Amino acid sequence: RTVLVSLMHVNNETGSVNDLPAIARVCQDHGVLLHTDAVQAVGKLPVNVDTLGVDFLSMSAHKFHGPKGIGALYVRAGSNWSPWMLGGSQERNRRGGTLNVPGIVGMATALELAVDEMQQTAERMNSFKLELMRGLSEIFGQGIRFNNPPDGLFNIVNCSFPLENEGTLDGEMLLLNLDIEGICCSNGSACTSGAIEPSHVLLALGVPYETARASLRLSLGKFTNEDDIRYTVETVGKIVTRMTRKSKTQS
Amino acid sequence: RTVLVSLMHVNNETGSVNDLPAIARVCQDHGVLLHTDAVQAVGKLPVNVDTLGVDFLSMSAHKFHGPKGIGALYVRAGSNWSPWMLGGSQERNRRGGTLNVPGIVGMATALELAVDEMQQTAERMNSFKLELMRGLSEIFGQGIRFNNPPDGLFNIVNCSFPLENEGTLDGEMLLLNLDIEGICCSNGSACTSGAIEPSHVLLALGVPYETARASLRLSLGKFTNEDDIRYTVETVGKIVTRMTRKSKTQS
Repeated sequence: RTVLVSLMHVNNETGSVNDLPAIARVCQDHGVLLHTDAVQAVGKLPVNVDTLGVDFLSMSAHKFHGPKGIGALYVRAGSNWSPWMLGGSQERNRRGGTLNVPGIVGMATALELAVDEMQQTAERMNSFKLELMRGLSEIFGQGIRFNNPPDGLFNIVNCSFPLENEGTLDGEMLLLNLDIEGICCSNGSACTSGAIEPSHVLLALGVPYETARASLRLSLGKFTNEDDIRYTVETVGKIVTRMTRKSKTQS
Repeated sequence: RTVLVSLMHVNNETGSVNDLPAIARVCQDHGVLLHTDAVQAVGKLPVNVDTLGVDFLSMSAHKFHGPKGIGALYVRAGSNWSPWMLGGSQERNRRGGTLNVPGIVGMATALELAVDEMQQTAERMNSFKLELMRGLSEIFGQGIRFNNPPDGLFNIVNCSFPLENEGTLDGEMLLLNLDIEGICCSNGSACTSGAIEPSHVLLALGVPYETARASLRLSLGKFTNEDDIRYTVETVGKIVTRMTRKSKTQS
């Protein structure tokens, strides 16, 4: 009795890309509608609703350097929908409320720019991502675990640091220490920042609890440069080494 | 079994102000929560949730010259609520979604400015409103009907033009003609722009159907000046006179 399947296009914590065309075929075979949250994909990957086979697709402007507070929902013509936000008859009864025209124009312009520069941005960011992974591997050796899949999107490095002799690494403290050094990152999704529990995504991937706590999600942006990568490798290396040495001394 | 009463603070079509403290007392006597849509009031009237006696109050930034796409909901401490927008744990689980920080800061600044200048703005706008009503009365005589109450808010003039000999005046055509002359106004609420039916508010006030169609809502803003008022009186006078003469000729 399933009527709708809703899946991320790209996972926000690991960058892993769902095979939407394959999923869409299964949905179509069963007469089930398919929605995708393409917030992580739009502006970074080519997104074509027909190629993907989706009935609904949502996006957020601030994920491709557009303004905050604005997004869009694609609805395939003929698809069944009912309004979620009631009120006035704006957007042909789809969503009540005064239209945020500056936000809409800003989103469209940001998307045009992102799509125009997509190929170059992707190549540059991918090389930075590999450099970041290489740098961290040199410091932490075989013990570092990369939770971002090899074919994941080029903007996320998600790694778990090696813990020896039942040591621990407090992810929240790590974030605070990195923040002081000017590195903004996360150990889960941005939506759960402030949470003490380790990422549910990493736990679901089978990462052990203490290893999941000792993890970091580093996201690259369009404006990340080589110096940022070098500085991040050095600083993460220094702070993680110091923190794991301390935790071993304590235990 | 009523659990919530929700009322506008100020009506968006006539500027009439609800006596919320009196309504709040009735609600409190019956253990009913009171929400007010104060979108028309905030930044124009002194708004104090304790004086008004409301449990919930909503506002929109663009109504006091802040950015579009941002608003706020006041929730009295201890009131029962459940989140309407699910998702992340943002705003302490009250509303999921990445916070629109520029919008929030813009709204706060716009509100500060509006409150600082409230007294002078109110006096200036009130004199402009009276000038506008006087000017229209001079042109249309006793036949013009003002639907904004005498003690209504200073930013709205809502008038119905006199129709003689069973003439009609097409409100939509009137809006189009005024728009061409650079006057942006409405004959209902902004939420129903594009609708053919006359304002449900005017019909509820007992305004006859054809008179309601022959109506105009003129809203004044903080930046309205004397020249705007003079030009509006002249232009509305000229166009309405031409249109009613034509409609009489046709009939």
